[in-house]
Amino acid sequence: MNELDLVRAIRRHAGPPLSRSIVLGIGDDCAILRPPRAHDLLLTTDLMVENLHFIRASQTAPQIGWKALARGLSDIAAMGGRPLAAFFSIAAAPWVCANFIADFYKGARALAALHKVTIAGGDLSRAPEFVCDVTVAGAVPRGKALRRDGARLGDVIAVSGPLGRAAAAGYIESPGPAPRFDAARLLLKAGATTCMDLSDGLAMDLHRLTLESRVSAALDGVLPSAPGATLEQALFGGEDYELLATLPPSARLPRGFTRIGLIVHGKPGRVTFAGAPLPPLGWDPLMPDRFSVLSGQARRQAARSARRRR
Amino acid sequence: MNELDLVRAIRRHAGPPLSRSIVLGIGDDCAILRPPRAHDLLLTTDLMVENLHFIRASQTAPQIGWKALARGLSDIAAMGGRPLAAFFSIAAAPWVCANFIADFYKGARALAALHKVTIAGGDLSRAPEFVCDVTVAGAVPRGKALRRDGARLGDVIAVSGPLGRAAAAGYIESPGPAPRFDAARLLLKAGATTCMDLSDGLAMDLHRLTLESRVSAALDGVLPSAPGATLEQALFGGEDYELLATLPPSARLPRGFTRIGLIVHGKPGRVTFAGAPLPPLGWDPLMPDRFSVLSGQARRQAARSARRRR
Repeated sequence: MNELDLVRAIRRHAGPPLSRSIVLGIGDDCAILRPPRAHDLLLTTDLMVENLHFIRASQTAPQIGWKALARGLSDIAAMGGRPLAAFFSIAAAPWVCANFIADFYKGARALAALHKVTIAGGDLSRAPEFVCDVTVAGAVPRGKALRRDGARLGDVIAVSGPLGRAAAAGYIESPGPAPRFDAARLLLKAGATTCMDLSDGLAMDLHRLTLESRVSAALDGVLPSAPGATLEQALFGGEDYELLATLPPSARLPRGFTRIGLIVHGKPGRVTFAGAPLPPLGWDPLMPDRFSVLSGQARRQAARSARRRR
Repeated sequence: MNELDLVRAIRRHAGPPLSRSIVLGIGDDCAILRPPRAHDLLLTTDLMVENLHFIRASQTAPQIGWKALARGLSDIAAMGGRPLAAFFSIAAAPWVCANFIADFYKGARALAALHKVTIAGGDLSRAPEFVCDVTVAGAVPRGKALRRDGARLGDVIAVSGPLGRAAAAGYIESPGPAPRFDAARLLLKAGATTCMDLSDGLAMDLHRLTLESRVSAALDGVLPSAPGATLEQALFGGEDYELLATLPPSARLPRGFTRIGLIVHGKPGRVTFAGAPLPPLGWDPLMPDRFSVLSGQARRQAARSARRRR
């Protein structure tokens, strides 16, 4: 199978444009997009690497394709946008065959169809292990994007659902993660000051959010944990793709959201959990320690705090 | 070096937004772009893979960074657009160190600065070999993009410069390929019916253009070859990043362009060279035969045709 054959096959798998915003899809030097009037354009790219983001022996090709796209869609959701087009750059490993590509796109396209996303381009190459970079373009009403840098003192910190679900499931879910466009819409209505998706775990992601907003965060010490998830998995597990947000104290918490703490004065990026410092650990693609361990002190304080709440 | 440190370093290397079209760059779930009014958005992604698009032993980190970006910029140029923002998704091999990343971005940023392109985001990960996927977003006046599907019978086929230059230089150029934005501007003025960049070689790329336009092409048999380039290198070498275009017979050939053939009636995708069929071979990332060999017959006919012209 050479590149021309594979591009032909991918064009078939990708299907026709699903929105009027896509003027030209696969087959030219560039895709042409015409975003809706008075909208800003959102762009995100996410890598999906063999033996890092997926393991071939335990995930099917449709699951891998779904997840590759879900990561980018979740970023668009987290900005309060809606997705328009996705681009798949695939460096194929020697084991990749036409069937794998067909099934990979089947998974990606199932998710794309749910959210009316057109697969509009990409690139093809070879590598020792499978690497896929997915770019997603989306649109958000001008100036309305939910960014990470708007948290203010006194804002309430909330999450859109249970944490540690992916870690408790061994990071294998079928069909795959669901981007929380529904929850983002509620946040927009509620006047949220920040939002981001929980891809790398609460501890790491909240650290990033508070760094961008130049504030500190104090977590209460009680989290909405997923069934079967340990406290470590809820704090550091990652890949839950729930939304982490801050809202003004006067705002009503949107349906489905749980308050987990407050924005407080302090060193930018500093996060405490039940009063003890929470290290910014979690899923770091450049570090091997995916599952970091909470310090004994923080663990004991969290348990005490949870008892007080009951 | 963990991800947070590396992202901090990359943010420093990437520099500030270079245009008002970039509302938000690195540091959030998505970048936010505000393309100019009455423009379409162009999007392209290009992979740069170790031992395939570059060899570490013979190319410097700035050359690799420059070339990674040049490929995408050339796609924007080929559509008649101007670039706005670039996104680098890097899967770092074990040998990648902070110095390499700094020098890689130095090369990319030197080219980005020439064309006022903001490095606005990306992703980071690990892989056994270095893989970089570069997404470039650009803008083109609404409906004015130079596509591949507009060639008509009788159109003149032209190229913007000498062919086989990269192949003759062993695919190592310093600082790296130059996207032909200048030549694209001339094509827009001249009313070109198609344009694409010559990344994979004339034979392969003209085959693609004629497939998209559903026409055939007859090459005269004389090419503007780069000094030192063989006929095979000019036809199949690739990576020249000159522009291949078609123009109505009535159009004046823009300065710097050379006529190389005509669009003729025939099977879509069929290309002849001095009367003999030209196989759609060249640089194919999925096939090992980078340097394909012109058939003896085509070679003899080309030589005869060249003699006739003198």
